Amino acid sequence: MVKIPVGVLGATGMVGQQYIALLAEHPWFEVRYVAASPRSAGKKYKDLMAGRWQLLQTFAPAVGDLIVEDANDLSRAIAAATAGRLAFVFSALEMEKDEIHALEDAYAGAGIPVISNASANRWTSDVPVLIAEVNPHHTDIIPIQQKARGWDRGFIVVKPNCSIQSYVTPVYALIKAGYEVKRLFVTTLEAVSGAGYPGVSSLDILDNVVPYIGGEEEKSELEPLKVLGSIAGGVIQNAAEPKITAHCNRVPVVNGHTACISLEFGAKKPAIEEVKQIWTNFSGLPQELDLPMAPKRPIILREEANRPQPRKDRDTDKAMAVTVGRIRPCNLFDIRFVGLSHNTIRGAAGGGILNAELLKAKGYLGS
Amino acid sequence: MVKIPVGVLGATGMVGQQYIALLAEHPWFEVRYVAASPRSAGKKYKDLMAGRWQLLQTFAPAVGDLIVEDANDLSRAIAAATAGRLAFVFSALEMEKDEIHALEDAYAGAGIPVISNASANRWTSDVPVLIAEVNPHHTDIIPIQQKARGWDRGFIVVKPNCSIQSYVTPVYALIKAGYEVKRLFVTTLEAVSGAGYPGVSSLDILDNVVPYIGGEEEKSELEPLKVLGSIAGGVIQNAAEPKITAHCNRVPVVNGHTACISLEFGAKKPAIEEVKQIWTNFSGLPQELDLPMAPKRPIILREEANRPQPRKDRDTDKAMAVTVGRIRPCNLFDIRFVGLSHNTIRGAAGGGILNAELLKAKGYLGS
Amino acid sequence: MVKIPVGVLGATGMVGQQYIALLAEHPWFEVRYVAASPRSAGKKYKDLMAGRWQLLQTFAPAVGDLIVEDANDLSRAIAAATAGRLAFVFSALEMEKDEIHALEDAYAGAGIPVISNASANRWTSDVPVLIAEVNPHHTDIIPIQQKARGWDRGFIVVKPNCSIQSYVTPVYALIKAGYEVKRLFVTTLEAVSGAGYPGVSSLDILDNVVPYIGGEEEKSELEPLKVLGSIAGGVIQNAAEPKITAHCNRVPVVNGHTACISLEFGAKKPAIEEVKQIWTNFSGLPQELDLPMAPKRPIILREEANRPQPRKDRDTDKAMAVTVGRIRPCNLFDIRFVGLSHNTIRGAAGGGILNAELLKAKGYLGS
Amino acid sequence: MVKIPVGVLGATGMVGQQYIALLAEHPWFEVRYVAASPRSAGKKYKDLMAGRWQLLQTFAPAVGDLIVEDANDLSRAIAAATAGRLAFVFSALEMEKDEIHALEDAYAGAGIPVISNASANRWTSDVPVLIAEVNPHHTDIIPIQQKARGWDRGFIVVKPNCSIQSYVTPVYALIKAGYEVKRLFVTTLEAVSGAGYPGVSSLDILDNVVPYIGGEEEKSELEPLKVLGSIAGGVIQNAAEPKITAHCNRVPVVNGHTACISLEFGAKKPAIEEVKQIWTNFSGLPQELDLPMAPKRPIILREEANRPQPRKDRDTDKAMAVTVGRIRPCNLFDIRFVGLSHNTIRGAAGGGILNAELLKAKGYLGS
Repeated sequence: MVKIPVGVLGATGMVGQQYIALLAEHPWFEVRYVAASPRSAGKKYKDLMAGRWQLLQTFAPAVGDLIVEDANDLSRAIAAATAGRLAFVFSALEMEKDEIHALEDAYAGAGIPVISNASANRWTSDVPVLIAEVNPHHTDIIPIQQKARGWDRGFIVVKPNCSIQSYVTPVYALIKAGYEVKRLFVTTLEAVSGAGYPGVSSLDILDNVVPYIGGEEEKSELEPLKVLGSIAGGVIQNAAEPKITAHCNRVPVVNGHTACISLEFGAKKPAIEEVKQIWTNFSGLPQELDLPMAPKRPIILREEANRPQPRKDRDTDKAMAVTVGRIRPCNLFDIRFVGLSHNTIRGAAGGGILNAELLKAKGYLGS
Repeated sequence: MVKIPVGVLGATGMVGQQYIALLAEHPWFEVRYVAASPRSAGKKYKDLMAGRWQLLQTFAPAVGDLIVEDANDLSRAIAAATAGRLAFVFSALEMEKDEIHALEDAYAGAGIPVISNASANRWTSDVPVLIAEVNPHHTDIIPIQQKARGWDRGFIVVKPNCSIQSYVTPVYALIKAGYEVKRLFVTTLEAVSGAGYPGVSSLDILDNVVPYIGGEEEKSELEPLKVLGSIAGGVIQNAAEPKITAHCNRVPVVNGHTACISLEFGAKKPAIEEVKQIWTNFSGLPQELDLPMAPKRPIILREEANRPQPRKDRDTDKAMAVTVGRIRPCNLFDIRFVGLSHNTIRGAAGGGILNAELLKAKGYLGS
Repeated sequence: MVKIPVGVLGATGMVGQQYIALLAEHPWFEVRYVAASPRSAGKKYKDLMAGRWQLLQTFAPAVGDLIVEDANDLSRAIAAATAGRLAFVFSALEMEKDEIHALEDAYAGAGIPVISNASANRWTSDVPVLIAEVNPHHTDIIPIQQKARGWDRGFIVVKPNCSIQSYVTPVYALIKAGYEVKRLFVTTLEAVSGAGYPGVSSLDILDNVVPYIGGEEEKSELEPLKVLGSIAGGVIQNAAEPKITAHCNRVPVVNGHTACISLEFGAKKPAIEEVKQIWTNFSGLPQELDLPMAPKRPIILREEANRPQPRKDRDTDKAMAVTVGRIRPCNLFDIRFVGLSHNTIRGAAGGGILNAELLKAKGYLGS
Repeated sequence: MVKIPVGVLGATGMVGQQYIALLAEHPWFEVRYVAASPRSAGKKYKDLMAGRWQLLQTFAPAVGDLIVEDANDLSRAIAAATAGRLAFVFSALEMEKDEIHALEDAYAGAGIPVISNASANRWTSDVPVLIAEVNPHHTDIIPIQQKARGWDRGFIVVKPNCSIQSYVTPVYALIKAGYEVKRLFVTTLEAVSGAGYPGVSSLDILDNVVPYIGGEEEKSELEPLKVLGSIAGGVIQNAAEPKITAHCNRVPVVNGHTACISLEFGAKKPAIEEVKQIWTNFSGLPQELDLPMAPKRPIILREEANRPQPRKDRDTDKAMAVTVGRIRPCNLFDIRFVGLSHNTIRGAAGGGILNAELLKAKGYLGS
């Protein structure tokens, strides 16, 4: 099979690097276009990355030899698309929100689908915020989006903030099983890689905790409502619940976001054992379609008293599974539990690739 | 002024060491008796501590020359008391709960007051669990306790678990100001020193979080109710509220427990600004009495968005102040905030010493 | 191909776990016998490991169902060998040195070859200390050892201390290329996993360095001389040089030992560029034989100014490669460089497995 | 006594903050002038520091109210000096080396003595690099410097790089005791605070070591020779020895540089016990003059096998003492030992203040 040529916008940043690394041996996609800021443009990717590459996994040699393009120069992308070297782009842009918004629009307008990791379009009403196991049906808004914008082949889909990945899939599994989830208390203990590179200063985090991450609590409270929402009137309507309050903390962990959650059901309340069953048995469309990046089981239940733990559980099943544990009654709500996911893989580049696989399987990225 | 001679039971452990260090220059008390397990007995304290001493502060030379006694051998303590070398003991015993319970009873029964850091007697109904700024009036149960047990001069007081120190004082300040506090969600991020030495293995905590500490959530939920309770019928009756649910985590921090709290008031709710005022202005009996170990202000309010932080705030005012910050509305309850206190000083040995100062000032330790 | 049934002595410890994990999908060997201390005996391995398993990789289900044997009960091993369930053992015993020495002798004497990770037999004169790429010819002493002891099929081989792995292979490559290496200054920065579990207390290593590891400097100075030695007179004669002085430090790193080395050549001195060539091109018998656990290249050269680094380089090529970098002139000796290897894989279980593969390929473990 | 008014150039950086904190209660000096980059100028120091202040100790209220000046605007400093608000400056400038060089010259030329922490003037031949206990006599070059430059009251003195503080004082003590020190192998394990703020990214140092610090090895090898040099021909002539080779590493430690040293004496070699005596008894001019910032003993000897350690020893005696330990024979040179000092206090701001105290005591800062 000939692989689909893909591009990575923001290819030199942390998430961009993670995309490049994860796509090194992808069965469907092949990175043939890399773009970054103007000052990176014109250099070979491997030359640019010498001393800046942060990951254990290396990139494919062919990617190392690519000349980095200026992400702002759309003509280069159009030329690549015309030449058959670019079918769609993963956006891991690190710019001002307004600029990213305009640029993602421009790519989509030029017929190049944008699968984005950025927050710029998360609250654009006709742009779906996808977690492939949770709301794959939100892709139905793509034709609506294209029609409304007058776009032909291009479109924009995004993925949510990494912090919500550790609890939204478990919450959705409960909803899918027929239980209303009314309210959530969430406290996150987030890894430093979530802030990019150089990101968090070592002087702020060694022997320390920082109980604040700018904008993170708002994202953690609101984005789940869009993910759990429904399409109506040509837009995605937010779900009315669960109502969420979040406390977000930065901790001295390299990768892996942990979340402590108290959850209140509606009138109908499952027993603890049933919750465990629901999570263990949960499966979504990516599993049904056997997508390459999909974990075998989206939610892994650990029965040990002291799990999940970021260093020991973050890499479970290609770092794409969400691990849950400590499921127990809550004194104030119904149940308490701990959720964990890898923030730069499941919560960023890996989640973006899974979204692309879903879109490909559904026919949105050409046949 | 001649200093009161005091003893430290469990003098070789982490909390025991912290007692010794903090008492090195104490204006009222002087360590003249140190006891530990039988295998430590008979050696000079300084010889025993070579290579085991964990703190920056050193011990007084005179303490180094003390011969360590067997804590189980009450006759030695009685002899010391008779000889005027022991007026009361700080208990930092690390044994089975039942053994500690029996031993603390025996010391008190022998006329030697016990100011304990251990959990063994926290749920003994006539033993007060003291935070000097919160429930100093609970010392009123001492004569009742003495009478019920047939004790003469001896008695037992304890202090609560270190994890509750970061939120109970702020909660009490609000109650004292006239606001009912109904419910609390608490997530703690606790330092490794809370587990003693060697305690937490480095393999469990480097680049990691452990979302479980055995027994800690139960203590964090229940002990505040006794601290906030009242004396009735010859025992301490628990307060009925706040109802608390706790998520306790171990994080890679040396000292300083952080707590993220959501708090629900009763019908009458203060504005955020009033909460800040209440905390800034809060003062207790230790401040009124100007006790040596008392912080000038029990609660320090930080206005920066990213404070309190353990490494930067734990040592505030002799490591005896509780620092609060991020006071903001909660989506589900009324307010959210972050509290922080030094777990082995304010939350352990320093709190115990402050309790002793309070008891001395009230006349319970002789005139 | 039917896999060779192997046993792991000390299967519940850190190195034992690493053996079990690395052998989970081994093409030649299959774990069918696990032994540990008497108090572990009689339980299923998976039950024993619930809550004690430290690694990301899991064990094979069949291993989980094995009943753990008492490592001291040789009759069980003999029965397993007779029944065709045990061809040889990996020894990761954690007991007193004398006990291990006696027990390894007993297994070998009973016809069960022992491939050991323990230090007990490292200075037994007819026991080879193997690094498969460096001294594979030292296996020639096995028949001599068997004859001297009156052993039939059994024998003992060991591997050196993990601390020397980061510099002995590079030093050997230079010697093999024709350069005398006269003197070495070595400073190690060693990971906490080297001390086993629970091993290093978090209170000793968070925000800290411990400039001392008991016995480590002696091992780091002397063991290389045996590895680089030769067989003569029925024993392994130590090499006369290099003369080594070692400073060993524990640092807050989970896995991966770093070493800073200054090296003095004999009269003939290679240029820096030639040193790089020698290391890049170095290959040994495991590579020639294409052994399953062998890294493609034993030494990986990084040209970046700030590499190797433990977190970024320890896992290179199945965590079996030694990474070197910062090769530069030394003001006092000839060259300086930094070496790094994964201490529990290349420096322990992985190195042991590679030794077993070498022995198998040479016919010492049956045809 | 009226305090001498001093200024801090670069008052907002890490070392600048440390100066401000350490001078908060200084008996001789009072900060009355703070300067930083143009974009900081015109604001109150306390407003600028809200959210940027990194230290536990706070600044004096009067300093908080100072208006920050533009360090480049010499006229402001001259006006302050004329007005009696500025007697000399501590330079903790963080600019390009050339700019610092020019600016320090300009201040000195304007009659304002400069006591610098920067590296810009360390190799200016008539500028002394002072460690107050080691080469206080190098202040004798000040009149020569003033005469050569045509300066009246102003002059420049600097202090060496923080990395050398852990071994130069011990080495000097041996030289002073009559032993030649010919060669040194030094491996440093340096704290992240040495790189300033934000400095080292947490992604580079959590669970990691970086075996490279730009320019640090050259400083560690060469600066000791100037400190140990002598004044001749109107310049400071470097000492000819010891010849040093350095390996510099960054480790996950907040404060405190550790150094592992092997040392070769000349023909005359002291016994280990004598080395210990020399270090324990060593005292310098700051001790003789009883300068406020001087540690009681410049070198503290620890006899425990595993000391010094940064977290446990860095704060010894106002964080101004150098702690040594593990003194033992070396296989290649004569002795091995471990040295440790606090890099931002003894190795930076505290060392600078001690230099100022020395200069004041010697009359160089006015009577």
